[in-house]
Amino acid sequence: MVQRRRKLGRGVAIIGGGMSKFGTFPDKLGRDLMVDAYTEALQTVGKGMDPKDIEALYIGNFTSDSFEDQGHLGHIIADTLGLAPRPATRVEGACASSGVAFREGIMAIASGMYDIVLVGGVEKMSLLGTEHVQDALGLASDAPIERDDAGYTFPGLYATMATAYMARYGSTREHLMHVTVKNHQNGSLNPKAQFNVTLRETMEQRKRRNAQRGEPVPNWKDEFDFLMDPGPNPLVAWPLYLFDCSPVSDGASCIILASEEIARNFTDDVVTVAATAQASAGPFGTWGGDITSIPSAKVAARQAYEMAGVTPKDINLAEVHDCFTAAEIIAIEDLGFFEPGKGAFAAAEGQTTRDSDRPINISGGLKAKGHPVGATGVAQIYELVQQLRGKAANQVQDAEVALAHNLGGTGAVSTVHILGRI
Amino acid sequence: MVQRRRKLGRGVAIIGGGMSKFGTFPDKLGRDLMVDAYTEALQTVGKGMDPKDIEALYIGNFTSDSFEDQGHLGHIIADTLGLAPRPATRVEGACASSGVAFREGIMAIASGMYDIVLVGGVEKMSLLGTEHVQDALGLASDAPIERDDAGYTFPGLYATMATAYMARYGSTREHLMHVTVKNHQNGSLNPKAQFNVTLRETMEQRKRRNAQRGEPVPNWKDEFDFLMDPGPNPLVAWPLYLFDCSPVSDGASCIILASEEIARNFTDDVVTVAATAQASAGPFGTWGGDITSIPSAKVAARQAYEMAGVTPKDINLAEVHDCFTAAEIIAIEDLGFFEPGKGAFAAAEGQTTRDSDRPINISGGLKAKGHPVGATGVAQIYELVQQLRGKAANQVQDAEVALAHNLGGTGAVSTVHILGRI
Repeated sequence: MVQRRRKLGRGVAIIGGGMSKFGTFPDKLGRDLMVDAYTEALQTVGKGMDPKDIEALYIGNFTSDSFEDQGHLGHIIADTLGLAPRPATRVEGACASSGVAFREGIMAIASGMYDIVLVGGVEKMSLLGTEHVQDALGLASDAPIERDDAGYTFPGLYATMATAYMARYGSTREHLMHVTVKNHQNGSLNPKAQFNVTLRETMEQRKRRNAQRGEPVPNWKDEFDFLMDPGPNPLVAWPLYLFDCSPVSDGASCIILASEEIARNFTDDVVTVAATAQASAGPFGTWGGDITSIPSAKVAARQAYEMAGVTPKDINLAEVHDCFTAAEIIAIEDLGFFEPGKGAFAAAEGQTTRDSDRPINISGGLKAKGHPVGATGVAQIYELVQQLRGKAANQVQDAEVALAHNLGGTGAVSTVHILGRI
Repeated sequence: MVQRRRKLGRGVAIIGGGMSKFGTFPDKLGRDLMVDAYTEALQTVGKGMDPKDIEALYIGNFTSDSFEDQGHLGHIIADTLGLAPRPATRVEGACASSGVAFREGIMAIASGMYDIVLVGGVEKMSLLGTEHVQDALGLASDAPIERDDAGYTFPGLYATMATAYMARYGSTREHLMHVTVKNHQNGSLNPKAQFNVTLRETMEQRKRRNAQRGEPVPNWKDEFDFLMDPGPNPLVAWPLYLFDCSPVSDGASCIILASEEIARNFTDDVVTVAATAQASAGPFGTWGGDITSIPSAKVAARQAYEMAGVTPKDINLAEVHDCFTAAEIIAIEDLGFFEPGKGAFAAAEGQTTRDSDRPINISGGLKAKGHPVGATGVAQIYELVQQLRGKAANQVQDAEVALAHNLGGTGAVSTVHILGRI
């Protein structure tokens, strides 16, 4: 296999972005949430733009087939946003659908075909009950192998990886709790997060609720004590409990891309795409025996660093795919931020908090911000763009290089993007 | 809106292609059919290639979610073909899924990111009973508007367009029958076609079957007489009868793309991509009152002709999206081969047969070759590549410029590609 350093035929930049609030919105369809995201995106293009200058759309969505009974999606978003007859392509990459869509938008511009492209992601998951969400998300596993033969659900798949990690490196459930506490802390500062509240405040709310109802008030001494209580935090798949899992969410996100040559016609606040990478993998059984790291993420990370000409040390902040707390631990190792086996301990030591050298999931991550699966990849990019522009709700100081890591399936697909100021 | 002639940053060529037989294959999954297509594709690369030189995959698929209970697909194809960890992206564009995937592969190469890309399409539809296929294909309509409010099925949507066409231009059901007869005639010469038999032979088979069973033997005098009989050809949605509709099919197709700079390293028999275009539309109600032509197809056709620098007269043969006979009539008008309202009459006069100046659906089309929806777009390209290389089963003489037209939904998405010899 020829290995070459990949590069784009011309540079691609980000000139605007938006996202809907994440949460559960019974009265809105996915297309309505995209209107919210798109409206904000247009407003963030500093010098303004004519929406008609958008030449093509890429929409990441996992399975509106199952969630909204809507299989064909691209044209609906184009039509809803008033952008038909522009080409509108739906890209599916499970929970990395819009990480992949973002990448297609980048290549469409680099190809010379288009100068301005709208990339978005959307998922409307809350119409179904939780057990049906489980079935729908199960469509992301390899049906005959992982699901039908092995009987895995997604929490089960990640629990298996978490168990292997803990057995190999000696970490415990408490290390995972630090990820939960941190991401809820971050989410409390993000008004668009589904859980815009710290875990301590959640705990206090429960106490007040019980008191109001005349029920016994638990004597939780801190968040960790709260998380140890199987009442509020029941087991899902050992060692993953409810608060180790991202929630069921509705939401949409979008980014406006332009060729670097013309980006400054639209804004002085340009963010550049320094690298785009994507890799795939088959089920566990094809990974060569080690399930404590995700091969596709490591391949994509290596390619992204090569393309951007940077190393993990150069990354100032990162949004990573914490569908489960254990996934964040594995991600920060796969991305080279920590050595294998050190991630859990680093997280417990506070090396990934907003006050650390390299904050992880400053947005609240999938855990607290929410995880409308098809919207997540571009929502990560949105957060990083806000940070690089100095306009984030939970602003990090002096960030210049940022990384987004989006996963689909059990590492079946990974995308890694590196963004920077130009 | 800025109108500009679109062009790619660098040229893209086709160096190989394959397709599985189309039909119903109870013992094969979609991934197995893709192995068939891929195996042939590698064999058609004249000078041979190392499969490891393939750098990325694009897979068109409409709804394996519904048909195979398999939502996330790209990585499964990569893994099955031994191509993981290469990026493998599933693209959804309803029945134009692989027309759209083909386009993404073209742009990925033109972007400079990759030199060699595998583009495929797959659909495994026959696992479900016919009524469930109807439901699954119904996911391609606009769920709240076309399906839930208006109550349309897909035959109903196209029947509405066919009715409007007949009312406006005075054509009859018999004009549509000419499309059926021609496409089965073409399919009879294509060994990979689901219906590899002429309609006359089908008619004779029915007579023999009845005789063998001791049942009355109908006295059909020709194919048209046969099609008028509601026994073998029952009404589906007036004016569309069973033989006006493409069948339920399983199948896969793929094409190997390379940058023009390196294409001749792999084959002397290079086909070039002269144009790629795609457009979208909302439901009927947004089309401006005329449903006798499909706006997205006209936009895509215009852009494709501009990009290739040719006119409809320059096209030597075309594969068009005849999901229903009426759709072929509308397509040959939208593509500019015939004036509005003349297509039905031209078809009846034999102006689209294999002996005409511009054969339409020489492969048998969706009607006779079969329509595994996600595979259709790339299967059209496969047929044209075989024709341009002089290697088709049903070879047309001296074809140099060929066009593929792929539709999704009721014109919700259209792709038009123009291929030529270089």
